[in-house]
Amino acid sequence: MRKVQVIGIGAGDPGQLTPQAVGAMRSTDVFFLLDKGEAEAELVRLRRDLLETHLPQGTYRVVEARDPERDRVAGGAAYSPAVGDWRSARAEVYERLIAEELGEDDSGAFLVWGDPALYDSTLGILQEVLERGMVAFEYDVVPGISSVSALAARHRTGLNRVARPVQITTGRRLAEGIPEGVDDVVVVLDAHQVFRWCAAEDADIYWGAYLGTPDEILVSGPVAEAAPRIERLRAEARERKGWIMDTYLLRRRAGER
Amino acid sequence: MRKVQVIGIGAGDPGQLTPQAVGAMRSTDVFFLLDKGEAEAELVRLRRDLLETHLPQGTYRVVEARDPERDRVAGGAAYSPAVGDWRSARAEVYERLIAEELGEDDSGAFLVWGDPALYDSTLGILQEVLERGMVAFEYDVVPGISSVSALAARHRTGLNRVARPVQITTGRRLAEGIPEGVDDVVVVLDAHQVFRWCAAEDADIYWGAYLGTPDEILVSGPVAEAAPRIERLRAEARERKGWIMDTYLLRRRAGER
Repeated sequence: MRKVQVIGIGAGDPGQLTPQAVGAMRSTDVFFLLDKGEAEAELVRLRRDLLETHLPQGTYRVVEARDPERDRVAGGAAYSPAVGDWRSARAEVYERLIAEELGEDDSGAFLVWGDPALYDSTLGILQEVLERGMVAFEYDVVPGISSVSALAARHRTGLNRVARPVQITTGRRLAEGIPEGVDDVVVVLDAHQVFRWCAAEDADIYWGAYLGTPDEILVSGPVAEAAPRIERLRAEARERKGWIMDTYLLRRRAGER
Repeated sequence: MRKVQVIGIGAGDPGQLTPQAVGAMRSTDVFFLLDKGEAEAELVRLRRDLLETHLPQGTYRVVEARDPERDRVAGGAAYSPAVGDWRSARAEVYERLIAEELGEDDSGAFLVWGDPALYDSTLGILQEVLERGMVAFEYDVVPGISSVSALAARHRTGLNRVARPVQITTGRRLAEGIPEGVDDVVVVLDAHQVFRWCAAEDADIYWGAYLGTPDEILVSGPVAEAAPRIERLRAEARERKGWIMDTYLLRRRAGER
């Protein structure tokens, strides 16, 4: 039976790659590195570096493929169908990779930044490939240090306050308002810097980009004061590097600590 | 200046201890292992084993201390003050450890199961010690694989569904109902198995105990079917080992995948 491993490789700091992840990499015959375009070329290169650092040369094969671009739709209404189409297109690519590049007894792997369980589509796509029924395989998941954990550690703060909840959500959802009943909100995938709209809130923000890498940027403070600074640093970094990966914790001051 | 490191050591699988955590351990002079009583003696022993596995003998010192017991209050009303008193009592213990056991240039460390950012009190207590102003120190945090990440990996599922939020909360909070606007809820610290009250929900549960250890137990399925099984397995395991650490994801079927 073909085997596929989905391996979390941490948020960016090579010191966050677990022995469990390295072990899984060592048992892999073929690595699938998916490239979403120019902006992600650096992320592919970083994964190749990881492989070269941890695996003996000649013991594995790398297959690069182009991940179908998401058909970005600005409005909210058409968003879900576009995501659906995109997932199907990706499922076809993954299916072809597994069927054509893995022999019957081979083990393949996808290396996922952060933790495969948080805002990563690989597991959903593999499930979709299995449901299509064209290729059979077993799969396993190795957890990784998520950018959310890395963010909290660098800011030396917890994500939740004592006995209270924390919600992880997207910029798109935050645009609908800070969720009810929650004062600690972690935001990922926020291309539109929705935190700027929260400047009227009595809240602190803990923001980080390129966490755990030499390019790391951290900003924290009351959101009204920090937001303009984050906006400027974010624009500069994005211009300089061509891409940005950032995440933040919004913490309302309401209630006890 | 005294230095304190709060080191996440993963959810239980030794393969989840990151090189960053091992590096931080190697730079530590004194480890503080806090014991909350009989039930936690095994957790102290496991941390001692980690140290013996990763550090050369004679390069570090271990100080064990008794962590003040929480004055457990069954009702919700008196809960917060009890937590406050407990935190102050713990702050006194931590303050004494840092002041008396660490020399001016020494480095101390607390080893935290999972990720120090999620439902762990060490960071809040250190902040409280600093605010008391009796002892000065710098501190740093090393993120760890949380039990939440480990749970999702073992069940080979994401925590969130595409572009949707996930909330992490406590059993006590879940008892007030599944939070509004969220269909994926991770529950920690649920001594009362509140998931049993969710049997009427059209929801799946992904439950795990002693994640990543030889004692690991996993159960998943529709909550109405799985709940009695979890209840039985949980009671048996708790009886056998004297303590249990478990967590679960509740996933409402409402909405698209």
